[in-house]
Amino acid sequence: MATTTRTAPSKGWRSTAELPLRPVTPYQARPDTVAGRIPLTLPRPSVPDPGFRPSAFAGEAVPFQVTAFREGHDLIGVHVRLFSPTGEESLHRLSPLHDGFDRWCVLVSPTAQGIWRFRFEAFGDDFATWAHAAELKIAAGVDVALMRESGALLFQRAAAEKTRPTAERRRLEAAAARLREATVTDDAALEIVRDGDLAAAFAARPLQSLVTIGATYELLVERERAGVGAWYEFFPRSEGATVQQDGTVRSGTFRTAAQRLPAVAAMGFDVLYLPPIHPIGERNRKGRNNTLETNPGDPGSPWAIGSSAGGHDTVHPDLGTLADFRDFVNAAADNGLEIALDLALQAAPDHPWVTEHPEWFTTLPDGTIAYAENPPKKYQDIYPVNFDNDPDGIRAEVLRIVRHWIAQGVKIFRVDNPHTKPLQFWEWLIATVTDENPDVIFLAEAFTRPAPMQRLAIAGFQQSYSYFTWRNTKAELEEFLGSVSDETADFMRPNLFVNTPDILTEYLQYGGRPAYRVRAAIAATAGASYGVYAGYELYENVARPGSEENIDNEKYEYKLRDWAGAQARGDSLAPFLTRLNEIRRAHPALRQLRNLRLHWSDDDAVLVYAKHLPAALSPDAVDDTIIVVANVDPHSARQTTVHLDTRQWGVRPGDSFEVVDLITGAEWTWADHNFVRLDAFHEPAHILHVKKEQR
Amino acid sequence: MATTTRTAPSKGWRSTAELPLRPVTPYQARPDTVAGRIPLTLPRPSVPDPGFRPSAFAGEAVPFQVTAFREGHDLIGVHVRLFSPTGEESLHRLSPLHDGFDRWCVLVSPTAQGIWRFRFEAFGDDFATWAHAAELKIAAGVDVALMRESGALLFQRAAAEKTRPTAERRRLEAAAARLREATVTDDAALEIVRDGDLAAAFAARPLQSLVTIGATYELLVERERAGVGAWYEFFPRSEGATVQQDGTVRSGTFRTAAQRLPAVAAMGFDVLYLPPIHPIGERNRKGRNNTLETNPGDPGSPWAIGSSAGGHDTVHPDLGTLADFRDFVNAAADNGLEIALDLALQAAPDHPWVTEHPEWFTTLPDGTIAYAENPPKKYQDIYPVNFDNDPDGIRAEVLRIVRHWIAQGVKIFRVDNPHTKPLQFWEWLIATVTDENPDVIFLAEAFTRPAPMQRLAIAGFQQSYSYFTWRNTKAELEEFLGSVSDETADFMRPNLFVNTPDILTEYLQYGGRPAYRVRAAIAATAGASYGVYAGYELYENVARPGSEENIDNEKYEYKLRDWAGAQARGDSLAPFLTRLNEIRRAHPALRQLRNLRLHWSDDDAVLVYAKHLPAALSPDAVDDTIIVVANVDPHSARQTTVHLDTRQWGVRPGDSFEVVDLITGAEWTWADHNFVRLDAFHEPAHILHVKKEQR
Repeated sequence: MATTTRTAPSKGWRSTAELPLRPVTPYQARPDTVAGRIPLTLPRPSVPDPGFRPSAFAGEAVPFQVTAFREGHDLIGVHVRLFSPTGEESLHRLSPLHDGFDRWCVLVSPTAQGIWRFRFEAFGDDFATWAHAAELKIAAGVDVALMRESGALLFQRAAAEKTRPTAERRRLEAAAARLREATVTDDAALEIVRDGDLAAAFAARPLQSLVTIGATYELLVERERAGVGAWYEFFPRSEGATVQQDGTVRSGTFRTAAQRLPAVAAMGFDVLYLPPIHPIGERNRKGRNNTLETNPGDPGSPWAIGSSAGGHDTVHPDLGTLADFRDFVNAAADNGLEIALDLALQAAPDHPWVTEHPEWFTTLPDGTIAYAENPPKKYQDIYPVNFDNDPDGIRAEVLRIVRHWIAQGVKIFRVDNPHTKPLQFWEWLIATVTDENPDVIFLAEAFTRPAPMQRLAIAGFQQSYSYFTWRNTKAELEEFLGSVSDETADFMRPNLFVNTPDILTEYLQYGGRPAYRVRAAIAATAGASYGVYAGYELYENVARPGSEENIDNEKYEYKLRDWAGAQARGDSLAPFLTRLNEIRRAHPALRQLRNLRLHWSDDDAVLVYAKHLPAALSPDAVDDTIIVVANVDPHSARQTTVHLDTRQWGVRPGDSFEVVDLITGAEWTWADHNFVRLDAFHEPAHILHVKKEQR
Repeated sequence: MATTTRTAPSKGWRSTAELPLRPVTPYQARPDTVAGRIPLTLPRPSVPDPGFRPSAFAGEAVPFQVTAFREGHDLIGVHVRLFSPTGEESLHRLSPLHDGFDRWCVLVSPTAQGIWRFRFEAFGDDFATWAHAAELKIAAGVDVALMRESGALLFQRAAAEKTRPTAERRRLEAAAARLREATVTDDAALEIVRDGDLAAAFAARPLQSLVTIGATYELLVERERAGVGAWYEFFPRSEGATVQQDGTVRSGTFRTAAQRLPAVAAMGFDVLYLPPIHPIGERNRKGRNNTLETNPGDPGSPWAIGSSAGGHDTVHPDLGTLADFRDFVNAAADNGLEIALDLALQAAPDHPWVTEHPEWFTTLPDGTIAYAENPPKKYQDIYPVNFDNDPDGIRAEVLRIVRHWIAQGVKIFRVDNPHTKPLQFWEWLIATVTDENPDVIFLAEAFTRPAPMQRLAIAGFQQSYSYFTWRNTKAELEEFLGSVSDETADFMRPNLFVNTPDILTEYLQYGGRPAYRVRAAIAATAGASYGVYAGYELYENVARPGSEENIDNEKYEYKLRDWAGAQARGDSLAPFLTRLNEIRRAHPALRQLRNLRLHWSDDDAVLVYAKHLPAALSPDAVDDTIIVVANVDPHSARQTTVHLDTRQWGVRPGDSFEVVDLITGAEWTWADHNFVRLDAFHEPAHILHVKKEQR
């Protein structure tokens, strides 16, 4: 019954059910009870840890939900009142989910960044209660006179509310008079009960009683890129690296790497993430394939940060100068790409910190500094930072470094292994940096157990790597996608990287090209953020034996790749990635995460999900619906029936609608049960757009 | 590694892992972060609604749980510090659950009633971290000198702690010296790492760093009967009722009903619940089988409260006087039975409230008072109370009534349909009454949706009816028992009534005697509280057609039952109920709810669960373990294999143990996989006691 209002984006929000603002008169408060007159509990968005805020990205379609109910049979209504960061107030009507758990929900999309406040309000919906009873009783001939008089009194009470438009008040007075008029038949009275205009007036301006106002909560809204983006990772030293006459490789530089930017941009990526760009330690440097012996020319791991050339605030001399880096950042921006820098808080043994600030490390009884270790293993190319010896000194130094790179134009940091540093350090750092610059984004490489992964997100990380790479079967993906799009979505935004320099899963090692194709399709459509590490498009799938990493890993050597040649031979996934990113840009439903809903197929390898964004919440004010059907068994063709709950996109069960496959261009008429055949070796996934014209 | 200490009950608690009290020095607090140095979150016991307390009953084995972890590989320890209602402080060591979610747990049983406070404390466990590394590295010959010196320093640091016993400090000094002594071989040093006495000393008094103290929470501990009891319900007017010459029935009285008390007590019940004992309305009184027409002599529904003879503070004249009621309460007490009274806040049309306080009801525009209704249906024998017209007046009146019955010796109230009254009213009433008398217990007849049912429990109801009657298949029961024994156990205590005057499920209607037998066995062993409404033991299973209630329902007439005759004919379940209650009294594990664990069988009708109570938490200081195996298909014999995780009661997988069937006396040697055959027509359930002597 709630009116659907499309809000002008200039307001700072979009809503599916905005109502006119009116003052409310709360029911008498009872200071001796915690429960309000109408109980309101389990609000969302929310976080499980007290003292922290839930978050959303600008433009995210956020379900505001609450549990509300009252005693007995009388009907209630529930509103959420939002206060934007600039103090603008708005009111939105929740609908019951009818899920048996008394949950109410409305979708609102905050578009203004900053800290929003919201509170739920529940009330006896006196018109709805009367209309429900009057409809049944007048039709049944029970208490007819009483129901007419009750209605007349109720309409008069509403007409007396000065906050209603004059025309509406006059209409309500007239309806009251007609209910009392003896010449008006009971059938005509029933028409008043069912009158659409009156119902709309009461939906927009309900006649309220027992108004109960819940607690006020906060929601942090961050910029869109905090939640939405296609990421690409490359090692700048590899881009433009050349083999010299003696067989050794000359490093690529920011200047040569910049020549690769147009190609990355042409594939449609939004963010380019660079592994650490700092000087690399020379002492105990790792050789190729993570060996302890180094050969001349081995560049070492970029994560072994620091040498006599400098530390975390310095650019590796092989890559160029700080000015070259700034030029690279600007060139990326010219190509529509944002740069994400790595923030790896650890030091090679020859990092300047080691001599200047030995107190930032752990000194052993024998006077040496402790290497990183997982007993009895030791990692002699890395000293971990000890955050407890001089916490204030380390805070100041890291803040200095982050500010330094922000000053060079960087606004995104990919944080290496944040779970190996104290949680409270990150909470402080992210709050301090985003207080100064709310556009800065931190991505947590939190490949760890669920509890620390989630706590890092709650403490402030805007994005997190996820378990996506290890979720490959239909059952695994259903559990994973259901969890990240709902259970943890109020505080954790997963970035669905398909691979990383550290992770080449067995699925990719043994799944062949179909595996690469279907994983990219799922990552790009299921994730609002997803990512690809360079080489994925060349199907690089050979692992170092016994490991889950690429052989001849780029972490320890230069990789010279023949992008153009592969593409010319038809051996590149780049065209497919390009198409996926085009689809993401054309379809706002895909640039959301919380709207993902799992649907069904009869095959244990055919995954089905859909994303819908209502016009009222869409930047271009048009409904957008995408259905993805993916065969996740890379070794077979599957044919099965797909079952859809089409009500998600407003189609009645049984009605048909037109879909177009955005990969192949094929068009079909679909309904709620549809035959599909997906041959992994041909095209493992359908990405279907539901056309608006419905038959 | 934690020491198991049995605490004298006089202390007010029992614990599986109590430690000596020592002062702690917290790590430097960071006022600018919410997260502590070692994150502590998701504490339990807890409730989902802020502002309310979790609860437990005196003697309940409560799992104190928290999520705790730290960065990197160093080990942590977690304690919970309890403060009893009288301010006694105690410290208990949590063990990791190793569940992948960083949960820690310790079982503590508070035995003193009142409001407890508790807080979790996490710390770097420096000895455990060192011992783990030293064990691996010394054995591997890595960093041996360093590990020995680190250990010596650590032992010296511990020895310097003045809170350790002198002998322990001396032992630590000696160990430090030996680690440094060149003549001590590395193998001998390894023995120091593995020394059990030293490990025990560090378990009792850990060497702590980074001590992080969590928030302080409250736990309300109520008397044991709030969570534990076998209930029996009868209508006093039926007990001793006699058929007169004219065929009408003369009502039973408190005096005649008192003659039934020894039989109820002999069956082993703890609580006798009486439907309302007040005068019954005469206007619009319901006739037999809920008809609108009354015949002379029809007694009416006791829930239609009030007549010219009085209201909620009055005894029905047919039952006797207030003095007779007091005598009945005393006679019950002499038989070891507590009386539970019904509290049904509604009025018959001739209740004195209607004339004295019409403002406590809803007056319609035609001047009449509104009947209870579910439009278009009306219930003309009942006026519902309107709690909003004069909330203070109604509060005062209900409090007066409750105090009145407390003054007659009643301490338990079974509240009729609390979900049809405002939640905040109950919150206020229960808090007010239990402030005056903490022993008063309210049972919610909250047959409603999960959200209001749980909110009533959170708001203060000590017990709640549950969905048990409608959970009959193995899958339904597993979901139900898993939920009530864990998810909601911090705030809701289900009373597993097998039937009520309102509920005769199809399972009982069509399941025959096996259904009655197996439902009683499950209720009595799975529920810490369970209940039986009189007539169950006579297998009364005929429903009024189209309803889920008994035909010729006792709500509307007298029931004259031939208890002795049925028992003599072998047609009574009373001997079985008696045996079940004997078993409950003999086995403290069954007088707990949170210790229920589901186990497995290969048959979809054979339900398996076990309850274990460790000696340290048992009132008689002996381990107690019960395994229940039930065939819930009342129409078949089933044979299958039962799979047990025997670690729950301290038996290693694969080891065998002796069990005795407490119903049949049969004895078997069992292990983790066992054949069972359960014939519903013979004996549908095993109730097995694990004998302490293990082979």
